[in-house]
Amino acid sequence: MTKLQPAQRTPISPAARQMLAGFKYINIPSFVPITPRFVARIRTQFQAGEDVIEEGLIAAGQLTTTPVTFNGVSGLKITGPQTNDAGPVIVNVHGGGFIMGTARERTALLAATETNLPVYSVTYPLAPEGQAPAVVQQVLDFYRGVRALVGDRPIVMSGSSAGSGIAAAVVEQAHDQQVPLPAAMILFCPALDISGNGDSAIFNEKRDVGSAKMALRLAKLYIGDNDPCAPVVSPLYGEIGAWFPPTFMSTGTRDIMLSNVLRFSDKLQAAGVVHTAVIKEGMWHGFNWEPQLPEAVATRQAAWQFIQAHTEARH
Amino acid sequence: MTKLQPAQRTPISPAARQMLAGFKYINIPSFVPITPRFVARIRTQFQAGEDVIEEGLIAAGQLTTTPVTFNGVSGLKITGPQTNDAGPVIVNVHGGGFIMGTARERTALLAATETNLPVYSVTYPLAPEGQAPAVVQQVLDFYRGVRALVGDRPIVMSGSSAGSGIAAAVVEQAHDQQVPLPAAMILFCPALDISGNGDSAIFNEKRDVGSAKMALRLAKLYIGDNDPCAPVVSPLYGEIGAWFPPTFMSTGTRDIMLSNVLRFSDKLQAAGVVHTAVIKEGMWHGFNWEPQLPEAVATRQAAWQFIQAHTEARH
Repeated sequence: MTKLQPAQRTPISPAARQMLAGFKYINIPSFVPITPRFVARIRTQFQAGEDVIEEGLIAAGQLTTTPVTFNGVSGLKITGPQTNDAGPVIVNVHGGGFIMGTARERTALLAATETNLPVYSVTYPLAPEGQAPAVVQQVLDFYRGVRALVGDRPIVMSGSSAGSGIAAAVVEQAHDQQVPLPAAMILFCPALDISGNGDSAIFNEKRDVGSAKMALRLAKLYIGDNDPCAPVVSPLYGEIGAWFPPTFMSTGTRDIMLSNVLRFSDKLQAAGVVHTAVIKEGMWHGFNWEPQLPEAVATRQAAWQFIQAHTEARH
Repeated sequence: MTKLQPAQRTPISPAARQMLAGFKYINIPSFVPITPRFVARIRTQFQAGEDVIEEGLIAAGQLTTTPVTFNGVSGLKITGPQTNDAGPVIVNVHGGGFIMGTARERTALLAATETNLPVYSVTYPLAPEGQAPAVVQQVLDFYRGVRALVGDRPIVMSGSSAGSGIAAAVVEQAHDQQVPLPAAMILFCPALDISGNGDSAIFNEKRDVGSAKMALRLAKLYIGDNDPCAPVVSPLYGEIGAWFPPTFMSTGTRDIMLSNVLRFSDKLQAAGVVHTAVIKEGMWHGFNWEPQLPEAVATRQAAWQFIQAHTEARH
């Protein structure tokens, strides 16, 4: 439960106030070892809650989820009754702290409903089994497969939290491997630096919905023996050039990952890359995936407009 | 003195780390009454420190400061050896918590040196003598005078902190009074809401260089008997339309006024106004006026580029 002072209540929506009041702070005390068995349990618990919401979104949007496999990497194609299968497509990388979540996550479903674009959402191996750089290569393989399928239709890559970090690393790898790049990137509350650096990991500890220290412990399962500041792990440290696709990012003042958005904005600016950051007053990590929350709806709307602006010219 | 954790040290410049380590937190305990005599003392102390820096900037930039008066409101015209007196001009509203500072402030001097545009910096009556809405009208009178003088050359209005709040209120008043508007606005760490609302006034209390609670107590001297949420006092609450000039804002993650930038960005976005916010990792209220600090130099550079982009087409 988050207690808000009047100064903090006024600028946010009544729905946001209510949600913040209802949140239970998510933490794993440092003395509790994060074993594979423990991870499996968190994953199951999380998914049980999400299943209900995801099925609701599928019903509301009359969505169809079709299993797909590209270059040996599986995922889902998500479409609705109005899906335009001649225009741009979205390749989505789900969030969940590297250890949980599935291709059917809320953001993928909401994107399919709200954009009427087909969403190809990748199923990547979760940590501790799935680690960098193998996961990045697998998502790149999936992306290459979608690209081969859709030809010259523009591809937008979207990601949430951990998935945004993977998506940005995939684009840096694609550039290195001379794979054609997406037309635009949508990075919600992106985990672009999982080394722990950033002011917001400190000042938003205990202000966000979950602990930054916990998130870093979970990220270590994905980092494995890699250097936490290696670009394939923390793409914020990659060399960014004008080749990087136009990028939309979102975050909020309570987000433990806020600093990622600011620091990456600086790098994109220096490289001359078109970019937009929507930073919402009082919003928490992952707020953007709330189906009805006004601040979330506005943020997704801005993201979808960004897609439109950066795929229209090319198609 | 601000203690930084390694996570907070890495993303900022060595100069910023050193400055943060040297800062003495500015506060006035709530039991100390803020009398006019007390305000006069703060003002003198503050100005003694600033005088040295301002004279250094004047010498370095070979600047000339010439007293001017428009419609009974005085100020300074600041020019340098390279000043272009045929292009755009800047009307500057200084900062200083409504109670201190002068037209010769650093930002005005740095703008003159770094843009080679003439800067008309207004001398407005300080609180508690100077209060809203009279101060807003006086700055508007000064602006109108500059406008009459320079004819159709584009005017950019810049402000810092308290001065940004006044500048934005002036533009809203100018719109109401059908006075032609500036071509662009530059709002550094803007005090757009001095009612106390905003997440950052809470989470950056004790993280910024000075106390938000203190800033609000000082602002009350300026607010007087007005409603703190009246647009002429807190222009964030004004009705913003597409008529509002293209606006550049800057702030940092430690700034007690960060939320103003985010909330006003939302309003500008909703109104379809071109706007940019530079939000710097780890930076404090007013960081932008540090002559050499890399984060400040980059922020001002972005501001001056914004001026260029939004005055070129018109001239």
